[in-house]
Amino acid sequence: MIRWNSLYAERARADHKDLVSGTGRQVINMSAGFPEPSLFPVEEVPRLIQSLAAEDGKALLQYNPPAGYEPLRAWIAKHSSTQDTRIETEQVLLTHGAQQGLDVVAKLLVEPGDCVLVEGPSFHGALWVFQAADAKIVTIPLEGEGMRLDVLEARLSELHEQGGLPKFIYTIPTFHNPTGYTATLERRLGLLELAERFGVPIVEDVPYNDLWYDAAPPPTLLELAGPERVIQVGTFSKTLCPALRVGWMIGPAGLIQKARHFKHIADTCSSGILQRVAYRLIQEGFWEHNVSRARELYRAKRDALTEAFATLNVPGVTCTVPSGGFFAWMKLPEGISSQKFQQFALEHGVSIAASPMFFADGKDAGACRLTISFPSPEQIRQGTAKLGEAMQRFFTHQY
Amino acid sequence: MIRWNSLYAERARADHKDLVSGTGRQVINMSAGFPEPSLFPVEEVPRLIQSLAAEDGKALLQYNPPAGYEPLRAWIAKHSSTQDTRIETEQVLLTHGAQQGLDVVAKLLVEPGDCVLVEGPSFHGALWVFQAADAKIVTIPLEGEGMRLDVLEARLSELHEQGGLPKFIYTIPTFHNPTGYTATLERRLGLLELAERFGVPIVEDVPYNDLWYDAAPPPTLLELAGPERVIQVGTFSKTLCPALRVGWMIGPAGLIQKARHFKHIADTCSSGILQRVAYRLIQEGFWEHNVSRARELYRAKRDALTEAFATLNVPGVTCTVPSGGFFAWMKLPEGISSQKFQQFALEHGVSIAASPMFFADGKDAGACRLTISFPSPEQIRQGTAKLGEAMQRFFTHQY
Repeated sequence: MIRWNSLYAERARADHKDLVSGTGRQVINMSAGFPEPSLFPVEEVPRLIQSLAAEDGKALLQYNPPAGYEPLRAWIAKHSSTQDTRIETEQVLLTHGAQQGLDVVAKLLVEPGDCVLVEGPSFHGALWVFQAADAKIVTIPLEGEGMRLDVLEARLSELHEQGGLPKFIYTIPTFHNPTGYTATLERRLGLLELAERFGVPIVEDVPYNDLWYDAAPPPTLLELAGPERVIQVGTFSKTLCPALRVGWMIGPAGLIQKARHFKHIADTCSSGILQRVAYRLIQEGFWEHNVSRARELYRAKRDALTEAFATLNVPGVTCTVPSGGFFAWMKLPEGISSQKFQQFALEHGVSIAASPMFFADGKDAGACRLTISFPSPEQIRQGTAKLGEAMQRFFTHQY
Repeated sequence: MIRWNSLYAERARADHKDLVSGTGRQVINMSAGFPEPSLFPVEEVPRLIQSLAAEDGKALLQYNPPAGYEPLRAWIAKHSSTQDTRIETEQVLLTHGAQQGLDVVAKLLVEPGDCVLVEGPSFHGALWVFQAADAKIVTIPLEGEGMRLDVLEARLSELHEQGGLPKFIYTIPTFHNPTGYTATLERRLGLLELAERFGVPIVEDVPYNDLWYDAAPPPTLLELAGPERVIQVGTFSKTLCPALRVGWMIGPAGLIQKARHFKHIADTCSSGILQRVAYRLIQEGFWEHNVSRARELYRAKRDALTEAFATLNVPGVTCTVPSGGFFAWMKLPEGISSQKFQQFALEHGVSIAASPMFFADGKDAGACRLTISFPSPEQIRQGTAKLGEAMQRFFTHQY
């Protein structure tokens, strides 16, 4: 008999919680970070695969190089370059979604007990990777303008004195998950200055960068500081579709060379079919056109949320007005448990994501992530109204 | 300035070597473990994606559940069941190729310093995963009939006394990579008996299991002992095509539930498009028919190798006659460096894989893996003749 419970690694012992998702037709799903399906290239994908198969034949279905389809790597390099910072193809690795990029970064840099700095709150998928790598996670508070630089400086000084500087600072500077916040240019420059002073690299996650509603965000950290100081992970999941599973990682050539080995370890390679489809969608102009469409569609959803929220008038509750991306951050009145409210809201027909999932220590910050990317504007209006009803009852009777 | 070299994790510091592959038209590729391209469903894949898109619409391109497309999980469960051992859907997780299954197993079970038992030689992709997990790898010698059970028993006893029993025993019992060996039923039962006695689970890798040339191999370890004692990883890369990236993992329901979380951490999900294509190829009978075709095609390649080898007549050199799978194992005369001979053979126009890559400690066992799956029978004959010429020269003049 195998006693499995005595064999699990420490990281596998806990019961892992997932997002509470809307299930059933009655529940409006404002928890899962799914893109709007009408943006998906449902006609283009089969057509492109047909023509790729006709052109490449059997070779299309063979193993793909671990680093990925070279023309797409070259396009990403060119697209990510600026006048001052030129990115080379060898500085780009294609990954199986941005999530795999984070996993590869952890394999490259994190040994058990190593320190990693993250924003609080932060993307749960990244926290899970760093936890699975047995990192010591240190949280820097996040506010509307970006990371609290005074706290960051204090922590870096402390860690430096203790001889345990972090392996990197993980940040989502633009249309942050879960808050929707975007760091100002000033904060970006301040962050880079501190990172440079302490010799700590930055891991910048840019899944939502292109999806601005009103005006382009400030330059990325990669654009500001270049790939010798910033590792960037990105994805086409939000601008094309998740099922292509095409993400990327940009960094120093030496690191990307090593990353190629860890990508190989992770899954041998990604599908050459899907990487070629992504490249064709870019070459045909679909991607660029889709990004414009996405901006309009998501702007209308953001407007639906802010208008609906304005009519609620529940004292002590605030909600961010994001300027891009998929998420808004709703703060509940002092002392309210977001986890209990999440459950209560689900019973009222709307699923949202409570704050504990977005903190490494699982703390309840009394806030919830509202996803606006997947539900329609009408569903957002209905969902917000349901949230309003739930709050009225919850705050009056349950609290 | 970032001093990257001081930031890399120990596992990322070394320069990682890859297989030496045939490049250029002059070189016959007998090193890379690629399947025969004429088996690939190059007409079926575009047609099936077309009809899936017509049926499922936009939903086809959305995120997929981390555990994978349920009908395919159910089919694998049923297909892997025997009269005595029934596998349930909840005991199956779909992975991004079998390689990801190995990575997930390591995340579930291996903490730094934990012991893992492997065959010597073994699949380099598995060794890389266990090395990246900072496992202590203990090698059990492999011979034609399977693992050396006397050595296995001695090692298990020693490790038990030291209080450090291995987390699992990793084995490729059928058409082994790199040797082509297949463990006899007696060795399988002996292995299971020892594993049971010491309470150690087995991780069984079955990529080549269906690809027998002459007669079906003995039952798998999973079939013999069930998913409470054996974790199995498998793949459709060899029986459909690599570009689908569809593999699986079978194990106890509790472990698979945890594995789902680590699959999520690794890459969020696999593409629902490709998992559905694999399922349709099975439903349409393509997979079953393709397996029969593969057996004939690979048998002809094995025959080409053995016939060509028989004409060489180089003293002290032997080559296995595999009864299935992709590989044969060529032993060089005592004292010859397989690594030096690999380089010499490459200069003579044929790429092969020297033994150090297949040992955790990189030892040169004076043997090379010959891949017969990718080259044509004619290329195998030419390649073997080139190997013969290279050996004549190398053994006479260089050694």
